[in-house]
Amino acid sequence: MIRHTVLFRLRHDAGSEAEAAFLENALALANIPGVTNFAQLRVLDAEDFDYAFSMDFADQVAYDGYNGHPDHTAFVADRWVPEVAAFREIDYTPLG
Amino acid sequence: MIRHTVLFRLRHDAGSEAEAAFLENALALANIPGVTNFAQLRVLDAEDFDYAFSMDFADQVAYDGYNGHPDHTAFVADRWVPEVAAFREIDYTPLG
Repeated sequence: MIRHTVLFRLRHDAGSEAEAAFLENALALANIPGVTNFAQLRVLDAEDFDYAFSMDFADQVAYDGYNGHPDHTAFVADRWVPEVAAFREIDYTPLG
Repeated sequence: MIRHTVLFRLRHDAGSEAEAAFLENALALANIPGVTNFAQLRVLDAEDFDYAFSMDFADQVAYDGYNGHPDHTAFVADRWVPEVAAFREIDYTPLG
């Protein structure tokens, strides 16, 4: 299992309609094949990031399928790149 | 729910007995009251951290109870401080 997380900060003001629209739109990522346990999270007590998405993939093949899926690449091009001010991806795999 | 994660890098060499002993010892954190979904994770493709622990708390009261629990404070004093070279805590709470 690979847990993919991405922490980010939007260009929008906190509490704005644009912020809400971005988060609402991103919910569709959960429907891309291979994505499980999709969650939208608020990052607490961090100065660099406000939000995070977390999702689990069974393996690298599933992860690659998500990355290359047209719904994902369209989201990145249409929403992520123009609306995200900063981000960091952190991926994990269980130990043992 | 609050998800508490801590990413870290040990002073020990990768694959060393000291590294394995640290991780084995840290499994006991899962038994502290309030801790759920405890997981030890390897951080993938990051230069700053090698491992992470993740755990969920029902609320801030449960989180505070963990922080102040003697098994936790002893772990921090006896293992974490001397054996961890760098770390970052990232806490999350689900949106919506």
